[in-house]
Amino acid sequence: MALINHNHQLPFNILRCSHTHYIVKDLEESRKFYVDIMGFIETEQVGRTLYLRGLEEKNHHCYVLEEGETPEVIALGFKVAFEEDLDKMHAYFSDMGIQVEWVERYAENRTLSVSSPQGLPLEFHAVQTRVPTMMREFAKYKGLAPLRFDHINCFTPNCQASYEFAIQHLGFRLTEYTLTEKGDMWAAWTHRKGNVHDLALTNGKGPRLHHTGIWTASINNIIHLLDLMASEGYVDNIERGPGRHGISNAFFLYILDPDGHRLEPFTSDYLTVDTDWEPLGWDLRDPKRQTLWGAPAPKSWFEHGSVFKGVDVRESDIESNPIISGAEDLI
Amino acid sequence: MALINHNHQLPFNILRCSHTHYIVKDLEESRKFYVDIMGFIETEQVGRTLYLRGLEEKNHHCYVLEEGETPEVIALGFKVAFEEDLDKMHAYFSDMGIQVEWVERYAENRTLSVSSPQGLPLEFHAVQTRVPTMMREFAKYKGLAPLRFDHINCFTPNCQASYEFAIQHLGFRLTEYTLTEKGDMWAAWTHRKGNVHDLALTNGKGPRLHHTGIWTASINNIIHLLDLMASEGYVDNIERGPGRHGISNAFFLYILDPDGHRLEPFTSDYLTVDTDWEPLGWDLRDPKRQTLWGAPAPKSWFEHGSVFKGVDVRESDIESNPIISGAEDLI
Amino acid sequence: MALINHNHQLPFNILRCSHTHYIVKDLEESRKFYVDIMGFIETEQVGRTLYLRGLEEKNHHCYVLEEGETPEVIALGFKVAFEEDLDKMHAYFSDMGIQVEWVERYAENRTLSVSSPQGLPLEFHAVQTRVPTMMREFAKYKGLAPLRFDHINCFTPNCQASYEFAIQHLGFRLTEYTLTEKGDMWAAWTHRKGNVHDLALTNGKGPRLHHTGIWTASINNIIHLLDLMASEGYVDNIERGPGRHGISNAFFLYILDPDGHRLEPFTSDYLTVDTDWEPLGWDLRDPKRQTLWGAPAPKSWFEHGSVFKGVDVRESDIESNPIISGAEDLI
Amino acid sequence: MALINHNHQLPFNILRCSHTHYIVKDLEESRKFYVDIMGFIETEQVGRTLYLRGLEEKNHHCYVLEEGETPEVIALGFKVAFEEDLDKMHAYFSDMGIQVEWVERYAENRTLSVSSPQGLPLEFHAVQTRVPTMMREFAKYKGLAPLRFDHINCFTPNCQASYEFAIQHLGFRLTEYTLTEKGDMWAAWTHRKGNVHDLALTNGKGPRLHHTGIWTASINNIIHLLDLMASEGYVDNIERGPGRHGISNAFFLYILDPDGHRLEPFTSDYLTVDTDWEPLGWDLRDPKRQTLWGAPAPKSWFEHGSVFKGVDVRESDIESNPIISGAEDLI
Repeated sequence: MALINHNHQLPFNILRCSHTHYIVKDLEESRKFYVDIMGFIETEQVGRTLYLRGLEEKNHHCYVLEEGETPEVIALGFKVAFEEDLDKMHAYFSDMGIQVEWVERYAENRTLSVSSPQGLPLEFHAVQTRVPTMMREFAKYKGLAPLRFDHINCFTPNCQASYEFAIQHLGFRLTEYTLTEKGDMWAAWTHRKGNVHDLALTNGKGPRLHHTGIWTASINNIIHLLDLMASEGYVDNIERGPGRHGISNAFFLYILDPDGHRLEPFTSDYLTVDTDWEPLGWDLRDPKRQTLWGAPAPKSWFEHGSVFKGVDVRESDIESNPIISGAEDLI
Repeated sequence: MALINHNHQLPFNILRCSHTHYIVKDLEESRKFYVDIMGFIETEQVGRTLYLRGLEEKNHHCYVLEEGETPEVIALGFKVAFEEDLDKMHAYFSDMGIQVEWVERYAENRTLSVSSPQGLPLEFHAVQTRVPTMMREFAKYKGLAPLRFDHINCFTPNCQASYEFAIQHLGFRLTEYTLTEKGDMWAAWTHRKGNVHDLALTNGKGPRLHHTGIWTASINNIIHLLDLMASEGYVDNIERGPGRHGISNAFFLYILDPDGHRLEPFTSDYLTVDTDWEPLGWDLRDPKRQTLWGAPAPKSWFEHGSVFKGVDVRESDIESNPIISGAEDLI
Repeated sequence: MALINHNHQLPFNILRCSHTHYIVKDLEESRKFYVDIMGFIETEQVGRTLYLRGLEEKNHHCYVLEEGETPEVIALGFKVAFEEDLDKMHAYFSDMGIQVEWVERYAENRTLSVSSPQGLPLEFHAVQTRVPTMMREFAKYKGLAPLRFDHINCFTPNCQASYEFAIQHLGFRLTEYTLTEKGDMWAAWTHRKGNVHDLALTNGKGPRLHHTGIWTASINNIIHLLDLMASEGYVDNIERGPGRHGISNAFFLYILDPDGHRLEPFTSDYLTVDTDWEPLGWDLRDPKRQTLWGAPAPKSWFEHGSVFKGVDVRESDIESNPIISGAEDLI
Repeated sequence: MALINHNHQLPFNILRCSHTHYIVKDLEESRKFYVDIMGFIETEQVGRTLYLRGLEEKNHHCYVLEEGETPEVIALGFKVAFEEDLDKMHAYFSDMGIQVEWVERYAENRTLSVSSPQGLPLEFHAVQTRVPTMMREFAKYKGLAPLRFDHINCFTPNCQASYEFAIQHLGFRLTEYTLTEKGDMWAAWTHRKGNVHDLALTNGKGPRLHHTGIWTASINNIIHLLDLMASEGYVDNIERGPGRHGISNAFFLYILDPDGHRLEPFTSDYLTVDTDWEPLGWDLRDPKRQTLWGAPAPKSWFEHGSVFKGVDVRESDIESNPIISGAEDLI
């Protein structure tokens, strides 16, 4: 059986996923997309790096867009409760023989980089520079009216191992999942902040970033974003949706930024703070899982992801089977 | 009985109400309100006059805002089917002894001014300069996302007489109404274009303009306008609503522009093109009539209106009665 | 040039399309779909025929569902202004040598059947039995909350000829269209009631009914219908959408009833009562035409239609060309 | 200064507020209101007690409606992480000299009753009987489509003392607040689950329950509830709203159940899991605080509350001042 118990005994406390740091090829193109179309707030630009946040957010950044040669991902950011959590993490992972190092990040007090066993470049901080929320400044509600960064979804070459690491060594809690026929984890949604997920893991060629999710208040905002993208020349950046997932109950849309980094504007999920909340297992063959309704996901959605800078990508370790290898229309 | 038959035999064909021409005291303040907050498209400014239209509209203007000393209304605009309708109107009303004259209006081919027996300054044109619709330019959807000018609602000192003129001599059709206890018309909703109204008439000190109505596609747009007005310093310009009218089934809001001209952003009405559609009569005492739900209308809503330039205002001719004189909370 | 002028001189006045009469194989299955899922009001059942209407409607029926052997369409219904229009129509079409006959239809006063030159079974009536509107009975708002029947869209084997008949002999007005490279009409949207269309015509194997359109007040209602269909076992009845058409600006969805009759719940179009409104021509190669955004239409959407009872279907007369024969992904 | 630090050292862990237990006079009337109009799921009826839950909820009840003589409140329910938290609570509050006792509650494993120093009847449980979520059963989305119980708002005769107890002895975290001119707490919003509040406290005659809050996914659901209440005879149960609060950013509505217990259907708040999130203080004179926009709250909204069974109500201890005593239109 692939399910394991949540670890309540860790010496540190991760609050939530907080941001993603992308390399983009043309900062002006990215600004047009993220600020003018999507509606993110531009906190500041430092050199050739742009720091963005959602309307609700009081932290300095949820997207760091750094101009560079190759579109890739520098790091996946998480926020911990206190500065001392970082020190406890440093000790904890060093003891495990996992590579950790302090890195310098603009507008973060201290930042600890941790490379997960499957190669995900995780970064932890306790404090970012505080900036004003724009939540009550309705003149700034544009495009999607993005309220906050919500989750990170990664391909991993060994989902079972990545899932176990997340539950046992990072303290994440499982909310929904699918297993292979042999009982290995095929995809897992795990959280810290009390909704469906902060970190989702999907088996596949990896490690790679599949997408980051952005919370907006209403379906109407997502439809307006579609209208806007279509009329402003971004129709080819719409990859999949709108639709409703069975998993998470989200009303979703998947779009690609100018560098092919995938974003999921979505709304509607649910509260998961109950400790007796039982994870919901889905059958890989249940068509409602992936798409309660909506057009089938295109091939690109299953295959394309953003690579992590300096991290090798390998094929999945999990043995495939007829269901899974033909799973393009199932998953 | 106050109801009369619709006149199908008129020699001319009014298509719909089309625009209002206001005097405003500060054009920059008006531009901020109508363009930046409400989201109207600025067609052009000519001297100290601003011409605006809704996102959907292909005619040059639905609001004409002319800077002047005193906030008032120059004219209520209507569009007829063909140029020859104007000539037929000229003859028809001249024969009736009604004052008509050709006036010069920017971006209209020919404009015929007709003063109704109760003093409403009506203006008719067949052709305005055609301009592009912005309906498919979703980047221009801001504020209310106002799609089109919908209706005009006036106080008249003799609603029965004004109603009869509208039905018999302008060809309007009655959709909903309320009668006094003596059977006189207290308020009438009449249309040409096939929805609830182009011209509504309410008994009261007049003639004065009560409000003009603006169609938007969704309730969410109206709520966004409220959020925007409240956060941008226009909370005192919100007079009444949001709420739902029994009459017309509209989801409504009433706001005041910087000069006190009242606007009604609304959505949801219904189709009235059927010739066997029977007008819906409301009892003055039916509380669902005015407000199916929503806070009671403030005193100002019953009392305040915009005056027409050069037109004397007089008290209502209709004999009041206990129901009507205490009707502030009923109507 | 394929465009012709609207005929203002016809002796009769068609108000709008009003209903469709379908043969369905299992009345209970149809009732579940139209009443329980879609939310139509059941006016009454007479024998094995079910009469339905939208929430707003005061006419007896907008869908007539008659149980029978083979799913097909009996007639496309239109409402005229007055009883005498029917007599004038009878004379007018008899003079043209077109087949007309009086038919008996339940809850209609008199009904005139007219077979169009391309074989569309048109039926005209002036008066249906009046029934109460449910527009203000919000407890009856379920499923899609369908307000009213809006339009009929047909395949015709000669779109140019069908279009000319509609404009010249029925008095419809063109709002949007696409032409073939040779300048023939490929698809035409025509109306009587003042919005985008009552009758749309598309070139193709025909005559057949492509779909009927149903107006609802908001995007949220369409999304709720999708959620409901997916959770109640009707996910395979979702054929295409949601999406936004360039043509008509509609937010659309296409679904199939249990017999494969196609329905289009939609919202958002625009006012077309202006006589100087110029029809909007689309290039067959403009991808925004069919789908401003949304998944590509499936093959079935281009190929499947409902046949008319007793009417032979033939291939299109219009000479195909490379663009058109490969037009599945264009149109 | 009235602000104190959050207590991270408590031996127990409250997850969230979970339910309210009301006495109602007529169970059938209550069922009509909560189930038919509001759309709550009826988990079961046991004798003359009805157990309800929201569409998303997997716990047995969020409202317990027990038929009795006098409308009052039996208890305010909270869920803790584990059974052992209850034992630790028992010891902790016993040590403080606070009255605690084990009570029997249907469908809860063990329930600990704790009477707060100001007299709030708090009840804590770790486990309720698990029942299926209806979140994916869209045919059950009716009325408000209530997803989950969200918060409890109480009048307390000494808000400063109640606030201190909540922060120091229950572990709640402050999100927003208003102070009197002397620096005492006038109103406090505190949470455990990571959004704006689980427990709000307002100075006034108390202890009494002001309202319980219910989360729904969209503004449209709240508007539909209003339409439904108005057309189904519940218009007098609408007390205040809709509107937008400055505090919490909620789009709100206040309604009264048939016994006068106040409910707040709302949507839109924000994430508060960050430990460096600084509470937002409001000036009592800031009109945006209470009502960003919307009609002024009626007198009843400031004065009326539900009493707790067997708990004496007393006037506020907090010295009033001109601002506060005239605060009906300010707060």
